[in-house]
Amino acid sequence: MPYTTRISIAFGDTDPAGLVYYPNIFHYCHLAMERFVAELFGVAYSQLIAEDRIGFPTVKVSAEFFVPIVYGDDIDVEVEVLKIGNSSLDLGYSIKRASDQTVCARIEQTHVTMNLDQKKSLTLPPHLRDALRNAG
Amino acid sequence: MPYTTRISIAFGDTDPAGLVYYPNIFHYCHLAMERFVAELFGVAYSQLIAEDRIGFPTVKVSAEFFVPIVYGDDIDVEVEVLKIGNSSLDLGYSIKRASDQTVCARIEQTHVTMNLDQKKSLTLPPHLRDALRNAG
Amino acid sequence: MPYTTRISIAFGDTDPAGLVYYPNIFHYCHLAMERFVAELFGVAYSQLIAEDRIGFPTVKVSAEFFVPIVYGDDIDVEVEVLKIGNSSLDLGYSIKRASDQTVCARIEQTHVTMNLDQKKSLTLPPHLRDALRNAG
Amino acid sequence: MPYTTRISIAFGDTDPAGLVYYPNIFHYCHLAMERFVAELFGVAYSQLIAEDRIGFPTVKVSAEFFVPIVYGDDIDVEVEVLKIGNSSLDLGYSIKRASDQTVCARIEQTHVTMNLDQKKSLTLPPHLRDALRNAG
Repeated sequence: MPYTTRISIAFGDTDPAGLVYYPNIFHYCHLAMERFVAELFGVAYSQLIAEDRIGFPTVKVSAEFFVPIVYGDDIDVEVEVLKIGNSSLDLGYSIKRASDQTVCARIEQTHVTMNLDQKKSLTLPPHLRDALRNAG
Repeated sequence: MPYTTRISIAFGDTDPAGLVYYPNIFHYCHLAMERFVAELFGVAYSQLIAEDRIGFPTVKVSAEFFVPIVYGDDIDVEVEVLKIGNSSLDLGYSIKRASDQTVCARIEQTHVTMNLDQKKSLTLPPHLRDALRNAG
Repeated sequence: MPYTTRISIAFGDTDPAGLVYYPNIFHYCHLAMERFVAELFGVAYSQLIAEDRIGFPTVKVSAEFFVPIVYGDDIDVEVEVLKIGNSSLDLGYSIKRASDQTVCARIEQTHVTMNLDQKKSLTLPPHLRDALRNAG
Repeated sequence: MPYTTRISIAFGDTDPAGLVYYPNIFHYCHLAMERFVAELFGVAYSQLIAEDRIGFPTVKVSAEFFVPIVYGDDIDVEVEVLKIGNSSLDLGYSIKRASDQTVCARIEQTHVTMNLDQKKSLTLPPHLRDALRNAG
């Protein structure tokens, strides 16, 4: 079963057309990833960054937006592990409107494990790889 | 020759890792699209929305980020018309670091012509289609 | 007892200096106001805007930031009613770091009751005024 | 004569009510401060942060918003030096609508000179103090 987390759409996330400004949909994916990582690895993403100096920047995105998300909506973001590479990680994000579980958006991203001091990619540490395998 | 516009990275666009927070890269694409539309159609995107009640929300995205963009960078965003559909429009965005023209990111998006009152897609008006054809 | 709501600092809220980019502190106040209004009035702010066409834009701000808020922090935002005017409303926001209740910021704002169609200020409707009096 | 810089309101800066989401007004102030600093000190704010490890975080704000700023507006932000302290700096920001010079907002902020490595306040370096005196 994929990891799911709920996010409430904020007033400031929406645009003059009344819809969520689409860059914010990627912000929701990042929020969901932060929470997923914390749950899976048992360590906050903030700690991973500050202490282990490891981050998961996005290098590749494909996304489809099926139904506009509007102010007042709550969304459920499902995160699933699609592929575990040597230093990369593919995650799938399905965004559903909480009220009726309508699928509003589907996003797939390749994240890279990065050493934040050297700004270089890094082989995924074994204990994180194991945690991801169990989630996938 | 594709349309090009320059954007300066703002302090607030970057994250604790010192890189542009990736949802902001899509914000830069939107900024570039707004300027491209204004130049091409001879009417500001704000006016198109407020008066004609036409917008171009994004429904599909594919993106690759090759080189991190950091605070202090200026970027040149090239916009090109990839495909003109009945009610849709595919645009390609190439983001280059201004200082050395390194390609940092490449994004392709499908925009849909939308009637903002009815929240429904709309056949691209002929005068806009003509302007796009000349740009493509 | 003032209304209190918890907010987690997101990765994207912080800047290259590792601190919350200060405009986001006002975003947290707005989030807290949205939740306070929903609790107090028994109607979501989104509904107030969409159906009653009433909003509470900010017209006056005074703020002090005592302690930087950083990525990884949770904050508790306390909202209290300071003054109920004819069409205006003064709210006080105290931001405490959740872990140790250190006061990080104190913000006072004057909000105006606005008719969003006419973009004009509006006498505070009696049932909202009553609810605010009970909260204050 | 105060330093003035022009900013175009972006689509994504505005809210469902059609007005600039007010935290973004502080973002405009920060943008104006970044440009003011670059002009005055002859060094980009990004460089000041990255190389000298000096920043100017905001510790105090007072603001009044007189006239809503909307999508489609260009604004002129005037920056003036109000007070030069030992480690602090008070700046005044006047935001005018470019089309008719209507004053939309007035913001005063106390910035603190901060050593970003030690996260402590710092006596304003003499060459920066001199440059500020000449501007004030």
